[in-house]
Amino acid sequence: MTQMKRIGVFTSGGDAPGMNAAIRAVVRAGIFYNKEIIGIYRGYEGMIEGDFVPMEVRSVSNILQRGGTILKSARSKEFLTAEGRTKAYEQLKKHNIDGLICIGGDGSFTGLHNLYKEHNIPCVCIPGTIDNDIPGTDYTIGYDTATNTAVNAIDKIRDTALSHNRLFFIEVMGRDSGYIAINSGIAGGAVAVIIPEEETSIDELIEKLNATGTQNKTSSLVIVAEGGKSGSAMEIAQRVKEKFSYFDTKVTILGHLQRGGTPTYFDRVLASKMGVAAIEGLDAGQTDVMVGIVHQQVIFNKFEEIMSQPKDIRKDDLRIAKILSI
Amino acid sequence: MTQMKRIGVFTSGGDAPGMNAAIRAVVRAGIFYNKEIIGIYRGYEGMIEGDFVPMEVRSVSNILQRGGTILKSARSKEFLTAEGRTKAYEQLKKHNIDGLICIGGDGSFTGLHNLYKEHNIPCVCIPGTIDNDIPGTDYTIGYDTATNTAVNAIDKIRDTALSHNRLFFIEVMGRDSGYIAINSGIAGGAVAVIIPEEETSIDELIEKLNATGTQNKTSSLVIVAEGGKSGSAMEIAQRVKEKFSYFDTKVTILGHLQRGGTPTYFDRVLASKMGVAAIEGLDAGQTDVMVGIVHQQVIFNKFEEIMSQPKDIRKDDLRIAKILSI
Amino acid sequence: MTQMKRIGVFTSGGDAPGMNAAIRAVVRAGIFYNKEIIGIYRGYEGMIEGDFVPMEVRSVSNILQRGGTILKSARSKEFLTAEGRTKAYEQLKKHNIDGLICIGGDGSFTGLHNLYKEHNIPCVCIPGTIDNDIPGTDYTIGYDTATNTAVNAIDKIRDTALSHNRLFFIEVMGRDSGYIAINSGIAGGAVAVIIPEEETSIDELIEKLNATGTQNKTSSLVIVAEGGKSGSAMEIAQRVKEKFSYFDTKVTILGHLQRGGTPTYFDRVLASKMGVAAIEGLDAGQTDVMVGIVHQQVIFNKFEEIMSQPKDIRKDDLRIAKILSI
Amino acid sequence: MTQMKRIGVFTSGGDAPGMNAAIRAVVRAGIFYNKEIIGIYRGYEGMIEGDFVPMEVRSVSNILQRGGTILKSARSKEFLTAEGRTKAYEQLKKHNIDGLICIGGDGSFTGLHNLYKEHNIPCVCIPGTIDNDIPGTDYTIGYDTATNTAVNAIDKIRDTALSHNRLFFIEVMGRDSGYIAINSGIAGGAVAVIIPEEETSIDELIEKLNATGTQNKTSSLVIVAEGGKSGSAMEIAQRVKEKFSYFDTKVTILGHLQRGGTPTYFDRVLASKMGVAAIEGLDAGQTDVMVGIVHQQVIFNKFEEIMSQPKDIRKDDLRIAKILSI
Repeated sequence: MTQMKRIGVFTSGGDAPGMNAAIRAVVRAGIFYNKEIIGIYRGYEGMIEGDFVPMEVRSVSNILQRGGTILKSARSKEFLTAEGRTKAYEQLKKHNIDGLICIGGDGSFTGLHNLYKEHNIPCVCIPGTIDNDIPGTDYTIGYDTATNTAVNAIDKIRDTALSHNRLFFIEVMGRDSGYIAINSGIAGGAVAVIIPEEETSIDELIEKLNATGTQNKTSSLVIVAEGGKSGSAMEIAQRVKEKFSYFDTKVTILGHLQRGGTPTYFDRVLASKMGVAAIEGLDAGQTDVMVGIVHQQVIFNKFEEIMSQPKDIRKDDLRIAKILSI
Repeated sequence: MTQMKRIGVFTSGGDAPGMNAAIRAVVRAGIFYNKEIIGIYRGYEGMIEGDFVPMEVRSVSNILQRGGTILKSARSKEFLTAEGRTKAYEQLKKHNIDGLICIGGDGSFTGLHNLYKEHNIPCVCIPGTIDNDIPGTDYTIGYDTATNTAVNAIDKIRDTALSHNRLFFIEVMGRDSGYIAINSGIAGGAVAVIIPEEETSIDELIEKLNATGTQNKTSSLVIVAEGGKSGSAMEIAQRVKEKFSYFDTKVTILGHLQRGGTPTYFDRVLASKMGVAAIEGLDAGQTDVMVGIVHQQVIFNKFEEIMSQPKDIRKDDLRIAKILSI
Repeated sequence: MTQMKRIGVFTSGGDAPGMNAAIRAVVRAGIFYNKEIIGIYRGYEGMIEGDFVPMEVRSVSNILQRGGTILKSARSKEFLTAEGRTKAYEQLKKHNIDGLICIGGDGSFTGLHNLYKEHNIPCVCIPGTIDNDIPGTDYTIGYDTATNTAVNAIDKIRDTALSHNRLFFIEVMGRDSGYIAINSGIAGGAVAVIIPEEETSIDELIEKLNATGTQNKTSSLVIVAEGGKSGSAMEIAQRVKEKFSYFDTKVTILGHLQRGGTPTYFDRVLASKMGVAAIEGLDAGQTDVMVGIVHQQVIFNKFEEIMSQPKDIRKDDLRIAKILSI
Repeated sequence: MTQMKRIGVFTSGGDAPGMNAAIRAVVRAGIFYNKEIIGIYRGYEGMIEGDFVPMEVRSVSNILQRGGTILKSARSKEFLTAEGRTKAYEQLKKHNIDGLICIGGDGSFTGLHNLYKEHNIPCVCIPGTIDNDIPGTDYTIGYDTATNTAVNAIDKIRDTALSHNRLFFIEVMGRDSGYIAINSGIAGGAVAVIIPEEETSIDELIEKLNATGTQNKTSSLVIVAEGGKSGSAMEIAQRVKEKFSYFDTKVTILGHLQRGGTPTYFDRVLASKMGVAAIEGLDAGQTDVMVGIVHQQVIFNKFEEIMSQPKDIRKDDLRIAKILSI
């Protein structure tokens, strides 16, 4: 065990359900191991400003089930510069913080990696993002909840689609990653799923719609991941409408409601385990790493190794989606 | 009691959660009173085509809790013409249907009113629309569920808004009616609510945002009813953005997910009572009326009387929203 | 307007979803009208001990959507005595509290009525109880949420009942009041509802089960309000089992989960309106009254008048339940 | 590919959320691969009686999101005998069924294994049970949903517990398996979890309660798996009550509501993949096997191999639960 005494914890980047459960686990595991835990508000912005607060068991009571992050999050332009990072480091030194735990996505990790390289402060990252686009772990915190939120919304839209013989294009989050789209597509019974990892031609899509929807005289849902090369849900719907008039066509963009809400048991347990692992890892000398859970085992991924890996959507999932959308 | 033997039931216009509970109540109460009940698919379109099916207790088993409508709904241009209505009436005669129960909104009621005037077929309407914009009843079927759906979405968006100090404009349904907006605004803790019944100036809104959001350094939610004179959520957000840069501004349009989902107990009970009342009313000689429930009492509103009334938003609700948004 | 400057607010008795929304409304409306609001922890127990805290807008931020009560609740034996009440009054005087708002059920109101008679402190009660058993208002805070919670649980149990041809007895809350039972019974599609207000014979129940369940070869749900004369769900199930073996019989007692959870929009709006009304009423000189909302209008009920009234279940609701359970 | 033409599918044993999604996947994948799919009602009971129905794409439309099983389930005593199984086999032969897919738990698999040994009919099992107690797969269908249902109930109970300083004992399902208990305990923030795999002494539990609850003057939740050696939640609560009076003690038994409800995305995707894999496996000559998904890969487990393995709770999960319950 190291001499680490005082550990700072913060959330950074887009918030994700389960971040509070991770904060709670870091604080409670820290206290269990006789560390002092300091909460840093608003990510790197608060770090630069010294917006720090000591965390007790009480500070994290009754937050396990809450969406969002009690430590708040922000994007800091200043921290992108070496000067900003030096300011941040001075604040950490001033407050005697000798280790950092960051809960966030890959952008946040890059910032911490730079801080580590320049100032050598021990640090561990916990992957918290609804997109599940980070290598080195089977799941990221928030993905399970966000996918359930998307699927619950799809269920509601299906009710109204079925009542009217309608074709709905539903846009879900996942900027560079089709995880939410493909899984909410399978779970939502979509006729097609359009993901960033794969280009979809409009003609193919229309062929598919003709083959299924019209023959069964029933409704159809198409799930579209935001930000894909094939265009937004709105654009794709427009192009389909021009060539396919069988159904009344509607678009729904789920948007930010996918970020919030009470985390599922899965995200709470994942966050709890990662929070404990981060404290234990830091205390055992791990640094510049991201905690991952791969097939139920905790691993520590060297920052540089994971950042160079792609995280591909599993090809087989697309195959399943296609078989079931007959 | 009348000699009525065979009653047709259908859903028309936009679907609303609880329509299935109303269909179930019509069928079961009909059978209880020894009527035959005929389901008419796809509203007036199916009526013109003779798309009829006899309904048994089994036909409505396990639908009480389902969103949408098992009889489906559609908008029929043909029924807007006297010729179309004559075709529909001939189908009804051919199938010995001697009474009609329509579950829908005011557009659907007008159609039935015309059919009644021209062909004298007894008919009763049940108000089913999420907008709660129909006079002659305290609540319409679907409004309670839709408002809860909106509020649950607002709760999720608040989580992420609070994590980032953001200003969200959330557009809810209610084309000419601010019911969902005002009530989800109070229930969602909105800083402002923009409804069709009242024009809102952008300057006033910005003043309000300055007075609350910035001083508390916290997030703000503004609820906008779709289709109001003040513009869409997107347009309002754009105009606010130009003058008010304190917060990062985002827009979410809840859209069709408000129409679906499992109905609340309130909508199921309302639909159950209205379904029973429609059968009992029709059997007692009521015609060209809409069932209403006013302060827990069933009433039958003459069609022409309610159509001439406005249904105003209660002024006091706006006052409450303003007091609580300090 | 009175000279009232400092108002104490507390929750008492069993907690109910929406109590936090009521506290928030009292605090915000109080501040809106330039009052100081003092939170009193743990009901009369905290009042006797002087467990008081000033409430700001911040004190009630982000609580609108939370179950339970941030002021906590307790039952105080000491307050049942005149000595206890005198102690409490002295604490109030010491802290310059010149008005009280109590959120709770009828037991809590009786305590406050006694305090008022003995010490003449202005006071207004807000009805918060899931049982909806308080006269002078159409609805009490928490009832809408609790009934939805019960119905959601019934929906889940129906899934498993239907998969196995089972007879389920489901016990819901409502000690002397069948409101939750009757409405969750209609909304849950129960074959029978057993409420405290009406004795149910086992033979009649078995006749009913024979008439419906067996003929349709399907499952049945019976809803039982706790604490009725007919016995607990467990006892009734036992007696039915002895005479009726067609189905496998199971019992589920929903219990305390009905008390918690995120309040519905309905309970949040009700609580918000009542909270504002309590402040406005107190300020306008109302005392020894309970706020009620009757057909959307705020009224102030003199304590003694409502306590002498019974609140009967509406006979017509039972009739509806019976027609629909064919 | 084999000559398999006609495949029977059925659900057996206790129902689990996601079984319908598995039925849907079997039917759709079957049709995709040009098989005829026959639904067998009520498990082995219906198999013996020849209660068969051909399944089309339409037969499984709009069931993906529903709890329970549209094919119903039952326990058959007759199938436990060789005579019963011979009767079942003759029905299968009569209907030209040349392969079987069973969705159920280990009891159901044993029945099918015997049928296979005696009559050599190709068969594949899909693990569907909320208990997650089957080796050879990371997760069983229904477990994710049931754990979320338990955690949502725990969240509601926590609201009321916190309002009153109470100690709640909450009994969750999982007869011989602590999976639901341990994971809902971590996710629900329980102070202690009592599972069948480990004996818990009452003295230890009281020590724990003294160490946490009383010092923080807050509420506590203890999760108890049903059927453990340490006794039921009711018995444990009784024994604790005798020695520990700091809190008011309450018990809630979640019971059958854990079996029902809309499946999560996770269970729907798991069921979809397993359904496709069962068809593909059977067609490729797999028999007497159970489909498993281990670290996202489909595997086929020989029946005899998995039945001899235990499925242990992961020790590390208990460790996490203890660290976080400080």
